[in-house]
Amino acid sequence: MSEATITADPDVPIIRIVRDFTATPEQLFRAHTDPAVFARWIGPDSVAAEILEWDARTGGRWRYVHRRGDEAYGFHGCFHEVRPDRIVQTFTFDGQPDGVALGTTTFTDLGGGRTRLHARSLVESFTDRDAWLHGGMATGVNQGYAKLDTLLPTL
Amino acid sequence: MSEATITADPDVPIIRIVRDFTATPEQLFRAHTDPAVFARWIGPDSVAAEILEWDARTGGRWRYVHRRGDEAYGFHGCFHEVRPDRIVQTFTFDGQPDGVALGTTTFTDLGGGRTRLHARSLVESFTDRDAWLHGGMATGVNQGYAKLDTLLPTL
Repeated sequence: MSEATITADPDVPIIRIVRDFTATPEQLFRAHTDPAVFARWIGPDSVAAEILEWDARTGGRWRYVHRRGDEAYGFHGCFHEVRPDRIVQTFTFDGQPDGVALGTTTFTDLGGGRTRLHARSLVESFTDRDAWLHGGMATGVNQGYAKLDTLLPTL
Repeated sequence: MSEATITADPDVPIIRIVRDFTATPEQLFRAHTDPAVFARWIGPDSVAAEILEWDARTGGRWRYVHRRGDEAYGFHGCFHEVRPDRIVQTFTFDGQPDGVALGTTTFTDLGGGRTRLHARSLVESFTDRDAWLHGGMATGVNQGYAKLDTLLPTL
């Protein structure tokens, strides 16, 4: 599985992502919590990420911006829980300041140096959920994870 | 409306609460963000609340415990957004550490010294949502708001 599986839950407004990596859970945890690493892979190839705030601990806050030429797209939220196998955080795109998603990312050891990442994102309505799904999300997810593939051996 | 209206959304796993108060939005905001005030009304009459952590700012964290004799029920989360008309926060009951709700509370000025509170709580499944609804939630909500009614004139 080198392409992420991205599915819309039929019953609740959740997007689910599943992706396997050649890495340990510890490496994936670091890739999601160390701001210097996270900035190198998050988002599509066309943007550069700059971390503005980052406290990847339970109860901490985060904020980053994706820049593409003169354009800037900001995102922010708080970390509800950060533990080695599970990160729960809120997520708002500054362009839709009243929208908020609750994201949960888990790392499951598959053995043999492989780890399965599950990421799910819960929002308040199916309309909001489907806007994310049809807004080019898959490109950003897959290009980001491809960059992460190349970084993981260095972590 | 002195009894809160508590409804289960038919389409998404959200609980909605509506309650009117004889107060300004500013007074209700203070009642939800000042820890000394919040501790005096949150929860049913049978418990005493103790605030353990409280940073009611965007990106801050919170933690409190309800005590009843020798029993203690802890709750914690982070404030995704705190602004005068809207508070968005995560919420976990320590007894179900993997469960998390995303709560949004708004204060709408009705004029004439009255304010309508809307609180909604989004969880990941209808099963989780209905467990909250059938777990005595209404008692805690209504007893808490009745205490708040008596505090508001002092704020």
